Amino acid sequence: LQLAVRAVFQSWNSERAAVYRRQERIPADLGTAVTVMAMVFGNLGADSGTGVAFTRDPATGARGVYGDYLPNAQGEDVVAGIRNTLPLQELERLDPRSFGQLVSIMDRLERHYRDLCDIEFTIERGKLWMLQTRVGKRTAAAAFIIAGQLVDEEVIDIDEALRRVTGEQLMRLMFPAFDLSHVDVPIATGLPASPGAAVGRAVFDAHRAAGQSGPTILVRRETNPDDLPGIIAAQGVLTSRGGKTSHAAVVARGLGKTCVCGAEALTVEGTSATVGEVTIHEGDVISIDGTTGHVYLGELPVRPSPVVRYFEGELSPLHDPLIAAVDRLIGHADARRRLGVLANADAPDDARRARRFGAAGIGLCRTEHMFLGERRILIERLILAETHEARQAALDTLLPLQRNDFIEIFQELDGLPVVVRLIDPPLHEFLPSLAELTGTVATKEAHGEDPGHDGELLTAVRRMHEQNPMLGLRGVRLGLVIPGLFAMQVRAVAQAAAARKAAGGDPRPEIMVPLVGAVEELELVRAQAQSILDATEGVPAVPIGTMIEVPRAALTAGEIATVADFFSFGTNDLTQLGWGFSRDDVEAAFFPRYLQLGIFGASPFETIDRTGIGRLIRIAVDEGRAARPGLVIGVCGEHGGDPESVRFFHEAGLDYVSCSPFRVPAARLEAGRATLGG
Amino acid sequence: LQLAVRAVFQSWNSERAAVYRRQERIPADLGTAVTVMAMVFGNLGADSGTGVAFTRDPATGARGVYGDYLPNAQGEDVVAGIRNTLPLQELERLDPRSFGQLVSIMDRLERHYRDLCDIEFTIERGKLWMLQTRVGKRTAAAAFIIAGQLVDEEVIDIDEALRRVTGEQLMRLMFPAFDLSHVDVPIATGLPASPGAAVGRAVFDAHRAAGQSGPTILVRRETNPDDLPGIIAAQGVLTSRGGKTSHAAVVARGLGKTCVCGAEALTVEGTSATVGEVTIHEGDVISIDGTTGHVYLGELPVRPSPVVRYFEGELSPLHDPLIAAVDRLIGHADARRRLGVLANADAPDDARRARRFGAAGIGLCRTEHMFLGERRILIERLILAETHEARQAALDTLLPLQRNDFIEIFQELDGLPVVVRLIDPPLHEFLPSLAELTGTVATKEAHGEDPGHDGELLTAVRRMHEQNPMLGLRGVRLGLVIPGLFAMQVRAVAQAAAARKAAGGDPRPEIMVPLVGAVEELELVRAQAQSILDATEGVPAVPIGTMIEVPRAALTAGEIATVADFFSFGTNDLTQLGWGFSRDDVEAAFFPRYLQLGIFGASPFETIDRTGIGRLIRIAVDEGRAARPGLVIGVCGEHGGDPESVRFFHEAGLDYVSCSPFRVPAARLEAGRATLGG
Repeated sequence: LQLAVRAVFQSWNSERAAVYRRQERIPADLGTAVTVMAMVFGNLGADSGTGVAFTRDPATGARGVYGDYLPNAQGEDVVAGIRNTLPLQELERLDPRSFGQLVSIMDRLERHYRDLCDIEFTIERGKLWMLQTRVGKRTAAAAFIIAGQLVDEEVIDIDEALRRVTGEQLMRLMFPAFDLSHVDVPIATGLPASPGAAVGRAVFDAHRAAGQSGPTILVRRETNPDDLPGIIAAQGVLTSRGGKTSHAAVVARGLGKTCVCGAEALTVEGTSATVGEVTIHEGDVISIDGTTGHVYLGELPVRPSPVVRYFEGELSPLHDPLIAAVDRLIGHADARRRLGVLANADAPDDARRARRFGAAGIGLCRTEHMFLGERRILIERLILAETHEARQAALDTLLPLQRNDFIEIFQELDGLPVVVRLIDPPLHEFLPSLAELTGTVATKEAHGEDPGHDGELLTAVRRMHEQNPMLGLRGVRLGLVIPGLFAMQVRAVAQAAAARKAAGGDPRPEIMVPLVGAVEELELVRAQAQSILDATEGVPAVPIGTMIEVPRAALTAGEIATVADFFSFGTNDLTQLGWGFSRDDVEAAFFPRYLQLGIFGASPFETIDRTGIGRLIRIAVDEGRAARPGLVIGVCGEHGGDPESVRFFHEAGLDYVSCSPFRVPAARLEAGRATLGG
Repeated sequence: LQLAVRAVFQSWNSERAAVYRRQERIPADLGTAVTVMAMVFGNLGADSGTGVAFTRDPATGARGVYGDYLPNAQGEDVVAGIRNTLPLQELERLDPRSFGQLVSIMDRLERHYRDLCDIEFTIERGKLWMLQTRVGKRTAAAAFIIAGQLVDEEVIDIDEALRRVTGEQLMRLMFPAFDLSHVDVPIATGLPASPGAAVGRAVFDAHRAAGQSGPTILVRRETNPDDLPGIIAAQGVLTSRGGKTSHAAVVARGLGKTCVCGAEALTVEGTSATVGEVTIHEGDVISIDGTTGHVYLGELPVRPSPVVRYFEGELSPLHDPLIAAVDRLIGHADARRRLGVLANADAPDDARRARRFGAAGIGLCRTEHMFLGERRILIERLILAETHEARQAALDTLLPLQRNDFIEIFQELDGLPVVVRLIDPPLHEFLPSLAELTGTVATKEAHGEDPGHDGELLTAVRRMHEQNPMLGLRGVRLGLVIPGLFAMQVRAVAQAAAARKAAGGDPRPEIMVPLVGAVEELELVRAQAQSILDATEGVPAVPIGTMIEVPRAALTAGEIATVADFFSFGTNDLTQLGWGFSRDDVEAAFFPRYLQLGIFGASPFETIDRTGIGRLIRIAVDEGRAARPGLVIGVCGEHGGDPESVRFFHEAGLDYVSCSPFRVPAARLEAGRATLGG
């Protein structure tokens, strides 16, 4: 007994416990407790036994007796899976008295917890002992269904039902899944590290994966930063080693790729993987399920999420109990929430989907995406322009293109706000990379060829090269340094709005200035923009605001608010600058190690870091509103769609969140939940 | 008169006034005032005249009558320099009554202002009118000398004398200057944009300047970001256009290069510059004086600063009145100041100089500089190591080298603290650049050669390439991700300290962890370092602290202080991250424009931005000390030697500043002045 007690006390100092405490900020000198109690035995003969039970079906919520029973056995025999268990109903026949007691206790427990409970029990020589109970785990779908049922049964009210589902569960229901109507047997099971269903040819090398044209699954023992191009190119990633914070898992989640990791039954070697008698060769099609961790041979049919089809308007709430429950709870969340939910969208397609998914407008319309494709050459001309005339000619060609982009988007969002962010990235991002061009030019020169246009480009790229582009000439700085650039964009917004208005529409553009760090920057840009808006006929009132994404902007928000009609937090840049690390560089390089060491509980790019970055947000909200009462404040960074972060934004007093269209429903749900407290 | 009044009122809305208001945060609706008064005339005959006077010699401080007088003239005639003025003494002969009045008024003015005054006066038909007076301008040397004299004359006390000299003036006295004992006539005069005396061959193209071997002066009409390599390579920069915030001026000041700009008499064209009949051809030796703005043909002898020779111990305070005044005032500053002054030094040479210049220890000993030169290959081996053994072998080779570095430095600073910062930059900075290697390998491959080691290196450089190295795998992150790296460095410190102690020395190392953003990072590194220190015999107590250079560290300083023995602000990184711009990328790209627009009054890399970055510092000081009373707090960024910033650090309650050895005297002076308030 003493040994056992000591073992429990020593577990306090285990590596795992230390990491957990570091994550949760639990003092190391707190210590732990041990409860010593008498044992009951389920293995004393036929009148003894042990089992587990659920108070209702964890998949559908139907009340009844669900569970397993094993006569003449201890709990670990059930867990070990050595002996086959009996359905719990059998107990009614074997020991009706205990069964009756169990059913009555289950009833009492459920009334107490007002939720599905799971229970472990032992019968020692005909006497029933309850070992433990807790609110039972369930799938994401069951969470919605059961919450709805408990309302119908008047066990809980609808607020409580909303508390019992999460945006994260709703997100999980929105990933495509394998159609498991025809049963397939997985060849292996790993950890479900990043959800979704991915099908493709197995490739065992990241560079080969990056070079393939069709869909691939990158299969590796474990991944390292070298594998990044392969992960980006693949549909999904499968590893035989590593946990949920391994390199593969973290990178895949960051990229939104399906990932199954630590499928230890697989032996990955060279260009094949074996499990038992099955061998996956390079090029074989496999299917991986990031929600269950299952790995299948061959191509499994992928089924779009019925929840997505419901949001798309393709399925009615009457379709099935899950859709009905989602519809009911998201409707209640909408009625409850104070936070508006907008979407980040740059193209008419995205804008339409955002509207269908319940966005009340566009909180971030990036304009740089309008410079890609065949328009890249126009930006190149702008960059290479050596005279004022050449620069103006390039801008004049861009103006009608941008104007048409805006006309389309204002049309899709007629009557709803569209926040247009002026161009943000450094201009050299529209040119080839320095290393790439250096290589091309060196090769041409070595062959005695004239590098021609590439040589000219290389000179420009060298001149514009930045050590740290994220910290360089971008955002509002571009507007202040490159004559006519912001003016062209504002003019395009003004003319598009005027055109829509003339056509009987109700365009509601807003102009947002990126990367402001000082009130003086915004003053200058605002004055110029306002004079262009004033000079264009038939333009509605256009609010002019700023992103708050540079720490200094948050720290001087009181000053900045005097010239801003609204604030919108760019939490991605604010996180990058506040922590001093760039997402591109660190997610693969050291985040896995940091998660493993417990330095982060969750990646600060996924869930807002309340202590550090959150403090900057609170300072900006408090001081911005003090300087300008009623200042509209939102967030348009990645965190706008993260459930845990949405709760923080509600608490911090923001007016809206804006996120990718796909995350709008989860944001609506969490915004409603946030008002319930607790 | 109405036109004149209107012109004054309209000047309120001039471009220049708007920029000035933006810099100084003066509301634009404040308006200005006009005083209308009767005119007196100095041009009404021989009994009239006008002049300027100083109450004492502005160069030496000697009391007397210094100035110019012009009979039968108005003030603008004096300023215009059309007519030759008379020495003011002549007035005694011409108009003894007015002269007597003037001398008595000058006496009264000086008693009132307790300082040298300059005066403008007019005599109208024998009646003396005072037009204006103000405390007179003087050279940096005169400021020290006069302040000393006024103390001797009991006009002011020594505190007041200290108030009247600045660290910036002391810095100016420490630059080398031309020896002007033999008179040379400047061929042109521009704006003194960045101090110092520079001699070299004129080069009219930045790329040629970068390619020259001997000392050069880059001569350009104006510079742009393309000229950066040439500015770096040159001794000094001369431009014919642009003001003190022009590109050339800002970049040269940032790099500590001598610069004369806007020498408008020069016509720069092709590979020559002409002024009157003189032509400077490419390759001609010229001399430029960044303190006066003078440009000379040929090589002028450069004289080391006598003030520097005094600090070096080569000149005694009795040498001349200037040295005596500097000695007296810096001595008083030392007696007054609360801030300690330490130096940033990595090499024994620097350490010695720091000590001579009055540093009370080393506040920043960078260890990465110890990995350069012939040791770079060892770091390369560490980076390329593919096994634990290879990595450990590389570290084992580095250990004795680092240990010897520390032994030398601890010896130089015996009895004084030496704060050793663990390695900070990303490791790929020790490898060739990606673009360079891509070019080399492409050329070799195009010629059908095997790229060999370069190919291997290229693979490693590609793997480690970072989009934004400043925001990547560096500082404490290296320590947590690369096994054994920090441990090797701590071991070297411990062994060096033990060796010095065994040899009878008094080593006082401290260990500083860079780039900490979260308390968990410091906890882990601290625990490892402490165990190494504890395991090494004969090591004195070694405080372990952290840099505060990531905004999040400042925002969570209360948590971090619980595991830090000291804080040291890295104001360079704190400024870069707080503003979201990297010094390398922005000083040339948009700072000149920002200064011109009045967005900055001064570069935030030269003078600490009190509003934004200063607020982070105050938060960290307040909350760090609240969590750990008596926490030692210093600064080791560039700002530690900036006079205006030193004053802020004093006010914010820091314990010390650490700066480059050359700036230590100015920091001592300003630290003393800061205690005087006002």
